[in-house]
Amino acid sequence: MRTIIECVPNISEGQDRKAVDEIAAAVRGAAGVRLLSVSSDPSHNRSVLTFVGDAEGVRRAVLALFAAAAARIDLTRHRGEHPRMGAVDVVPLIPIRGATVQDCVALSREIGAAIGERHGIPVYLYEDSATSELRRNLAEIRKGEFEGFPEKMRNPDWKPDFGPDRPHPTAGVVAVGARAPLIAYNINLGTKDIAVADRIARSIRHIGGGFRYVKAIGVELAERGCVQVSINMTDYKKTPLHRVFECVRSEAERFGVAVVGSEIVGMTPAEALTMAAEHYLRLENFSAEQVLETQLLEE
Amino acid sequence: MRTIIECVPNISEGQDRKAVDEIAAAVRGAAGVRLLSVSSDPSHNRSVLTFVGDAEGVRRAVLALFAAAAARIDLTRHRGEHPRMGAVDVVPLIPIRGATVQDCVALSREIGAAIGERHGIPVYLYEDSATSELRRNLAEIRKGEFEGFPEKMRNPDWKPDFGPDRPHPTAGVVAVGARAPLIAYNINLGTKDIAVADRIARSIRHIGGGFRYVKAIGVELAERGCVQVSINMTDYKKTPLHRVFECVRSEAERFGVAVVGSEIVGMTPAEALTMAAEHYLRLENFSAEQVLETQLLEE
Repeated sequence: MRTIIECVPNISEGQDRKAVDEIAAAVRGAAGVRLLSVSSDPSHNRSVLTFVGDAEGVRRAVLALFAAAAARIDLTRHRGEHPRMGAVDVVPLIPIRGATVQDCVALSREIGAAIGERHGIPVYLYEDSATSELRRNLAEIRKGEFEGFPEKMRNPDWKPDFGPDRPHPTAGVVAVGARAPLIAYNINLGTKDIAVADRIARSIRHIGGGFRYVKAIGVELAERGCVQVSINMTDYKKTPLHRVFECVRSEAERFGVAVVGSEIVGMTPAEALTMAAEHYLRLENFSAEQVLETQLLEE
Repeated sequence: MRTIIECVPNISEGQDRKAVDEIAAAVRGAAGVRLLSVSSDPSHNRSVLTFVGDAEGVRRAVLALFAAAAARIDLTRHRGEHPRMGAVDVVPLIPIRGATVQDCVALSREIGAAIGERHGIPVYLYEDSATSELRRNLAEIRKGEFEGFPEKMRNPDWKPDFGPDRPHPTAGVVAVGARAPLIAYNINLGTKDIAVADRIARSIRHIGGGFRYVKAIGVELAERGCVQVSINMTDYKKTPLHRVFECVRSEAERFGVAVVGSEIVGMTPAEALTMAAEHYLRLENFSAEQVLETQLLEE
């Protein structure tokens, strides 16, 4: 796979195992993608599928997903703790290798047009694909949820980017959009003082004057007897792990506190780590093609 | 590919393009391996093939390689600058992922027995597969070259590990063995004084009291106007890049010299870089399975 785009659709079914399996099978059956995981939450009544492929494979798999989900999920009968507006609720497209966010924006428009046309489901482009600032934020789009959309869509502000001007009777509406890969990254501090973690979190996060692609909060790790700066890295290419790590270390030092460790929760693209190695080892002229495993992905 | 073993056989043909292509095709045709590169040196009259696969695939490909090479290479007529003792001269087996050096030692014995039996070629196990200290070093085994082996093998010290007690009339003998992946790693210093690079190289290399898995020399980079510590890392798992980098930095400081950069020449397993990221970011509980690209290799 020369090009790897990750797609992490959220569907509004997390209880009916058979339905989820059949929807997952539709994705698995699409040529050019690999389904990596399916995770269902019964109390949210929601499942998250993770698959990867090139642009053409992802397009094919998303359309297969919609056909399978629209036939099996009826939102008029859906109850769950998580807010939702569609049978397929949201379709994030994430460039991992050999593709840019711009490529994923183009793909989201292509997929959005096809969903509107073939399935009669209104599509809102969100995040980096958004056609207005109001639509960048998923929570803003989803406000009112499935039940509120007939009313919400009378407002011209909420005319969809693709598809009809009213929600699909059972499948609702959907948000499709490109975003950079997100890395959940936590840094542990050698103190029990939550005020230190809070203050550092505020200093590194975008909203408080910190790094543009950092969201952060202070968290107590009671069982471990220390505190943590819990971080969402929303674009590791532009705000790399090592820069945030060094900033936290320097801020902690000012309080006489040591950084005792850090952790990546869940998945990361290899590049986020090789960028750290490049920085600290001062590597010159390094290319991802020098990594043996990378060559194995070239098919 | 859950298990990745790299095999880098050297064959004694680097001029006859057709013969090299046919030998490479035999490797490519073996199930369970991927041929990554073929590099021929006409003045050495020698080619290096690089392929990867699981143990069974590598065994199959090496035997196919021997059948193709023994039929096409006649060492009685071979001339080249590089010393050689066999049509297939040496077969290194290198664990990359999901396999240990011990697994590759077992594989080398299996492959060696099959070569001796099917092709009537004497096999010497070398490096980590060696059955005596004398045989660990490839140069020691190769001494006398193809022409000297009828005489050399009369000495009981040189009874082969597998196969007949005399060389194959046209294909000679071969060395097969397991070794850790080798990384060519250079560190550039902010000085033109070669004495500083020499002194640091001596201090870090195994032979001079330094790291066990480091070979190093000082080198002048005339066109760049600086000097370099040029390093072979012979086992990055036991002597990691970052430890050598920090040691060179500290030794250079003692001479008032800065490390201006480093470089990896050619290929590296991803792990060598993630180990550096783990070290500097103080990552806790990190697993290779968290790297997205790694999941894509699981088939």
